[in-house]
Amino acid sequence: MRTLYHGWLSPFSRKVRIVLGEKGLEFDLVVEKDWERRREFLMLNPAGTVPVLVEQDGAVFSDANAICEYLDESHSPGALAGTEARDRAETRRLVAWFDQKFFREVTSNLVGEKLYKRFMGMGTPDSGAIRAGHANLVPHLEYIAWLCDRRTWLGGANFGLADIAAAAQISCVDYLGDVPWAGHAGAKDWYARVKSRPSFRPLLADYIPGLPPPKHYANLDF
Amino acid sequence: MRTLYHGWLSPFSRKVRIVLGEKGLEFDLVVEKDWERRREFLMLNPAGTVPVLVEQDGAVFSDANAICEYLDESHSPGALAGTEARDRAETRRLVAWFDQKFFREVTSNLVGEKLYKRFMGMGTPDSGAIRAGHANLVPHLEYIAWLCDRRTWLGGANFGLADIAAAAQISCVDYLGDVPWAGHAGAKDWYARVKSRPSFRPLLADYIPGLPPPKHYANLDF
Repeated sequence: MRTLYHGWLSPFSRKVRIVLGEKGLEFDLVVEKDWERRREFLMLNPAGTVPVLVEQDGAVFSDANAICEYLDESHSPGALAGTEARDRAETRRLVAWFDQKFFREVTSNLVGEKLYKRFMGMGTPDSGAIRAGHANLVPHLEYIAWLCDRRTWLGGANFGLADIAAAAQISCVDYLGDVPWAGHAGAKDWYARVKSRPSFRPLLADYIPGLPPPKHYANLDF
Repeated sequence: MRTLYHGWLSPFSRKVRIVLGEKGLEFDLVVEKDWERRREFLMLNPAGTVPVLVEQDGAVFSDANAICEYLDESHSPGALAGTEARDRAETRRLVAWFDQKFFREVTSNLVGEKLYKRFMGMGTPDSGAIRAGHANLVPHLEYIAWLCDRRTWLGGANFGLADIAAAAQISCVDYLGDVPWAGHAGAKDWYARVKSRPSFRPLLADYIPGLPPPKHYANLDF
């Protein structure tokens, strides 16, 4: 069986879970506390980070983007990245936007401070960072609405890797109840469409021991 | 004419310059001080970062990886990323390694502290960060040597995007004279091979006003 090593509320692990779901591929999910730097895990990925995918023949893949592109190239090629070079360039621009810019400005400030720090025993959350995360989230929600005013999905006409990257980040923040959906109808409409996809359902069933999600987290009508 | 907006010692801009050189594509190079957040530049790339590529027909591309993959797909497809899905996955894993891990652990601590801070008027370099950058560089040089013991180039049998990502970062650090080449023969041998490529020569001719490179920077025999 295919195995995915993932982390709780790791947006990068979530991207791969959604892509595996979109491609209809079965897999075992194994939680890896990558900050413990387990020796056997470092043998799989010397960078020491989740996600790591082990294919049925034993081939090992790491780095979320490398895995997502590999899966999209190997099953219904281009269905998620786009079939034209310029479309893929736009998709990848937006993937980098959410993986890097959104993660640095929002997710690391909110999920990082509230959750990872606790997991790793690194002290109490920094309230300044949390305030910054909330403030930074607003222009990102507006950018999503702006894109959806012009396109069906973030990257263009079809649901794809840009939507997956954005939803992976936002779903982690939403698990903490930190997305101000009221007042952001455009982003909310887009996220409701993402939530209704079968590939997204397993993420909505996530339940972290000791940290239950807010009630609206799993609701399609939120 | 094709135009590339780039920054001095921006490793991500350097990646695109090398790829354009490898593909034999002509372009005008325009320096953009992206921290000034010039309005016309933000219209090209709302993320506000170099590099940005404007094609001859006016199409605009941003995010270094998106640009590099687009150029590789559009000219001699796969010559730099690989022609098999699994080879591309390994290339992309290593691109992420150098773009993200090396940049965070090494380049931002050395080039960031010594150069960008000065450019941006953000105060004096943090000596602790500089010490960390020097210490973090060593295992990266060892990893390059380890890969080259097993493969001709970092990503496999052919020169490609993994080498370009690594060399783009290292060349910025080397411009400051901060790479301890003595004692790292494996990495040095690989970098000498990269330096001898015609696509790399323009980077070796870079000269930042007020900050000349050390003599060995441009030498093929260093």
